[in-house]
Amino acid sequence: VKKLRQEFSVTFSYPVIFTRDIFSTRNDTLPQLLEPAGCTAAVVVADAGLLQAAPGLHDTMRRYLYALPGISLREIVVVPGGEEAKRGERIADRIREIIHRYGLCRHSHVIAVGGGAVLDAAGYAAATAHRGVKLIRVPTTVLSQSDAGVGIKNGANAFGSKNFLGTFTPPAAVVNDSDLLRTLPSREVRAGMAEAVKVAVIKDSTFFRFLESRSGLLAALHPGTVEQLIERCAEIHLEHIRSGGDPFERGSARPLDFGHWSAHRLEELTGGELRHGEGVAVGIALDCEYAEMQRLLSSQEKERVLAVLRHIGLPLSHPALAELNIPRALEDFRRHLGGHLSVTLPRGIGAAVQVARVDVPMMEECRRTLLRRERVDEQ
Amino acid sequence: VKKLRQEFSVTFSYPVIFTRDIFSTRNDTLPQLLEPAGCTAAVVVADAGLLQAAPGLHDTMRRYLYALPGISLREIVVVPGGEEAKRGERIADRIREIIHRYGLCRHSHVIAVGGGAVLDAAGYAAATAHRGVKLIRVPTTVLSQSDAGVGIKNGANAFGSKNFLGTFTPPAAVVNDSDLLRTLPSREVRAGMAEAVKVAVIKDSTFFRFLESRSGLLAALHPGTVEQLIERCAEIHLEHIRSGGDPFERGSARPLDFGHWSAHRLEELTGGELRHGEGVAVGIALDCEYAEMQRLLSSQEKERVLAVLRHIGLPLSHPALAELNIPRALEDFRRHLGGHLSVTLPRGIGAAVQVARVDVPMMEECRRTLLRRERVDEQ
Repeated sequence: VKKLRQEFSVTFSYPVIFTRDIFSTRNDTLPQLLEPAGCTAAVVVADAGLLQAAPGLHDTMRRYLYALPGISLREIVVVPGGEEAKRGERIADRIREIIHRYGLCRHSHVIAVGGGAVLDAAGYAAATAHRGVKLIRVPTTVLSQSDAGVGIKNGANAFGSKNFLGTFTPPAAVVNDSDLLRTLPSREVRAGMAEAVKVAVIKDSTFFRFLESRSGLLAALHPGTVEQLIERCAEIHLEHIRSGGDPFERGSARPLDFGHWSAHRLEELTGGELRHGEGVAVGIALDCEYAEMQRLLSSQEKERVLAVLRHIGLPLSHPALAELNIPRALEDFRRHLGGHLSVTLPRGIGAAVQVARVDVPMMEECRRTLLRRERVDEQ
Repeated sequence: VKKLRQEFSVTFSYPVIFTRDIFSTRNDTLPQLLEPAGCTAAVVVADAGLLQAAPGLHDTMRRYLYALPGISLREIVVVPGGEEAKRGERIADRIREIIHRYGLCRHSHVIAVGGGAVLDAAGYAAATAHRGVKLIRVPTTVLSQSDAGVGIKNGANAFGSKNFLGTFTPPAAVVNDSDLLRTLPSREVRAGMAEAVKVAVIKDSTFFRFLESRSGLLAALHPGTVEQLIERCAEIHLEHIRSGGDPFERGSARPLDFGHWSAHRLEELTGGELRHGEGVAVGIALDCEYAEMQRLLSSQEKERVLAVLRHIGLPLSHPALAELNIPRALEDFRRHLGGHLSVTLPRGIGAAVQVARVDVPMMEECRRTLLRRERVDEQ
């Protein structure tokens, strides 16, 4: 028996650029990103929901992109937005077929413009074609600009499981254009803020105080304040990937998934009627109640978290909570992480702990508290 | 405009173990690999070609694997060997469906036992399920044990393109069992030696002299000598990935693909009748003729390379060479690499250069030389 040990490191690097009016002829963000790579070919994958909400955007994109010097843009592929983009491999396959048809190579670019689901599907296609065509993400929702859109995951749903397919593949670049958010329904903007509350509670008390003091402006969807929220949230997300010690999530801990074990199930139970961010808000509320019972949060701290969510206009509860099978949701979460259960709970505001066990009767008590609270709020 | 730069490194590490009789109860290689991961579930993907060539192996595997303490082996999935395993996503999908059915998580293992194509398909499935289930490769051919099986790629064919789908995903471990090679037809054993000649010529003159002095033993398929060839070839391959500076092949250079631009096409032109290793042998001969014309190899050095190939029993030419569209094969190769053309040629024996241009008439002259040589050899 002879044993060799292989070991090597790979460095990943990409810019995250905050800009406005990305498809204006005066904006050189995209040409600058495309040029240094010696890229000659690119395809754009655009979110049909975005194009519908922003009449004229398709034409603007077309005019801008086809005129870029030195770039041979082959096609603007319009794909359905939302979970439809991730239903199996249908959309990813369509994108891969286009990558093949136009002879794109590993140095070519897929430019994905849209919400998180479209970015996930396009990212999955790009990551698995030629073992990795370059991906430029242009997220167009508060949620994707502040969270997953700046991260390193992609995915598609399969066999009834969310994100069963996917890889960890850092993008070539991310461009956050605040002007693209203007087309979003206000409900989507608010839902997107839930991930910011999430990271603030478990990672950054200064950011939490910012959200507290600006909750009125955020509720009013004040553009400059929403931009500040996105920038800081994206920054924390990037820092977590960079410094968290486990970018490709080989361990069982998933510290950023605070509030998510129940959120995923609530989205499913409501058939997607509850937006992801809204589910996360309810999940945060539930886990804060539990953290208080575990003496990880004081009553006053918990109330501060719930108050921020409420002031922004996010739900703290939902009738579907009553149907949540808590042990099963925890087991599904464990299985998704792999290995042992690891649930993130806040410890005070701005820090977190991982717990390997959840006291189910106590969690059920927390659920009852939230459901009661909802009835009181409704009266 | 605000710009953040994300940068982080990920370290990949895996053992490559050389053993015998891996499924014997006295062999603890697999349990040792599975245990430290806290793995509870695993599925085996086995090459139908191997099981057919080795009657009794299926039962031996079954008895051994289901008896492993602490491991819950869910199924031994038998898949077709050879390129059939990589025809689109059919086989990869079947493996992913099984990963889903048995609730395997990111800490579970897929154990792939077979030739390069089966390892590629199983690896692609494992890499894209749950964003990466662990993969243990048990390569069962000389080619896969010495080359791709110890590397970091996986793949499947799609849209008529070889390896159009795939990722760079290091395995959790590789186990090379020399006993598994006994079932191979002698033609397959010989074909597998072509990659060893390849790396020796461009990377290691000592290894080349080893091959030269042992060519008689290699032609006779002497097991101990074949094992030595595999070990050294695997070692060079691992070292190249580790120290070559570009493990995920982001640049255009592909230094290990010496002889491959024509080999891929010859495999296609013969409908797979020419084995991959045989195509590589012809490709090496062709590029050595060219290297001599470019004064990169002396006539004597070239003859030494051709002699090793011939003594081992590998072809130096093939009638399909006459049909090779040289400019188009080079263009396909460039496109597959992405970016600029970069062809590896030997510089003396044991070193290499990358050339960005190939003189097509001169290469055609080299082809004629080989075709003539074949006719002379046949007489």
